[in-house]
Amino acid sequence: MISVVILGAGNVATHLFKVFNKTENITVRQWFNRNLKPIDQYKNSVSITDKLEALKDADVYILAVSDDAIAGISSQLPFENRLIVHTSGCVNIHDMDKKNRRGVLYPLQTFSKAATIDFSNVPICIETLDKKDYHLLKHLAVSIGSPTKRINTNQRKVLHLAAVFVNNFTNQLYRIGHEITESEGAEFDLLKPLIIETAKKVQTMSPYMAQTGPAKRNDQKTIKNHLSLLENNHHKDIYNLLTQAIQRTHGRKKL
Amino acid sequence: MISVVILGAGNVATHLFKVFNKTENITVRQWFNRNLKPIDQYKNSVSITDKLEALKDADVYILAVSDDAIAGISSQLPFENRLIVHTSGCVNIHDMDKKNRRGVLYPLQTFSKAATIDFSNVPICIETLDKKDYHLLKHLAVSIGSPTKRINTNQRKVLHLAAVFVNNFTNQLYRIGHEITESEGAEFDLLKPLIIETAKKVQTMSPYMAQTGPAKRNDQKTIKNHLSLLENNHHKDIYNLLTQAIQRTHGRKKL
Repeated sequence: MISVVILGAGNVATHLFKVFNKTENITVRQWFNRNLKPIDQYKNSVSITDKLEALKDADVYILAVSDDAIAGISSQLPFENRLIVHTSGCVNIHDMDKKNRRGVLYPLQTFSKAATIDFSNVPICIETLDKKDYHLLKHLAVSIGSPTKRINTNQRKVLHLAAVFVNNFTNQLYRIGHEITESEGAEFDLLKPLIIETAKKVQTMSPYMAQTGPAKRNDQKTIKNHLSLLENNHHKDIYNLLTQAIQRTHGRKKL
Repeated sequence: MISVVILGAGNVATHLFKVFNKTENITVRQWFNRNLKPIDQYKNSVSITDKLEALKDADVYILAVSDDAIAGISSQLPFENRLIVHTSGCVNIHDMDKKNRRGVLYPLQTFSKAATIDFSNVPICIETLDKKDYHLLKHLAVSIGSPTKRINTNQRKVLHLAAVFVNNFTNQLYRIGHEITESEGAEFDLLKPLIIETAKKVQTMSPYMAQTGPAKRNDQKTIKNHLSLLENNHHKDIYNLLTQAIQRTHGRKKL
């Protein structure tokens, strides 16, 4: 049995609470938040508190709070030599107070408030200063069904950066697709199967091998047509920059 | 029963042949290609030819050939007043010779050579000059299980352009994610569930509502960290441009 205390009340904290709470060999001993209101609805299934001084004993304390709050809370913890972990993709492990053992449990996934999360689709990247702590965190992650990977600080930082490209930036391309189609009264819905297929393709094929289209073929006629269709100059800039990027990757253009 | 002649031997032609061939109320009367070699393996299930003069009678002739070849082949067809359609996202319907009735069957999907295609995931956009021809093409598309949509030329052109954003450009962002992670020995595999989830999210939520991340939050500290991690200046340019795009979309920055 692994005992856990959760600190924070955002999406990650809430989804972790829910999955821990239904996992047999994990017990959530307590849930802390400065403001009890967002966690009040769970008070029948877990002990809740807004006082760090009242924190109970546990195998691991999970600081699922905003990046800026991690260092502060870690130094205010009224105990020593226990295992504390944060869940951020970019906060340094050493930013947490060294009076406790430190680690990171970085779930590499996008969490929406409403949706239920299948943790078998949430790779958990684990970083610790001590190997013994790694085994406990791995056990915790495996218990909720997540794939796990031991990584170092640099690897976590580049994964967080890469996640911005494949998630936030990709979503912005979807947004531009939405704007362009709606501008002519065409339906964004028609693009949805293509969006899924594009994401599926790179599950089994490298993005390099999966590339197609006018930029890769250096089809200047289509590229010119597309640029003339784009009325928004910001969209033109993105079209040009990503076309050049594809052509550099596929050897159509000098570096 | 709808009778079809297919012209061309690329991915679209081949996938259309395969699905038509197994659909009860469609008969492929003939398959034409200038070079018989790529279609020779199908000669036991369909009549093949390399001569336009030998084309048989059919309800619809599908020119699934390269964009540049469409006009030429359409004018060389040795008959008149029959229905000919091309499958391109960007070639004008009027580029085909007006001696025949003209239409477009534009499948909005990415086709790989190897994979079998589930046509229920391939929206088919239909354009015709004559309403009667629209009904025949719709019947054809519905028979293979595809969602269909009647569109005009401008709508087809913006859908083709938007497809470049959500498919080719998105795939290039995956490629950059691949490069960034591998540069530190982290595994691209860890990003695959996030890629799928990002694509799934916009199936039920607008890309505007689905956006998250440092650009949307205007989290300058993380943005600076990311830029300092990026060693490739081309990647920095893309990071900056897409961050600005997100901030413009979400009102963080003046137009």
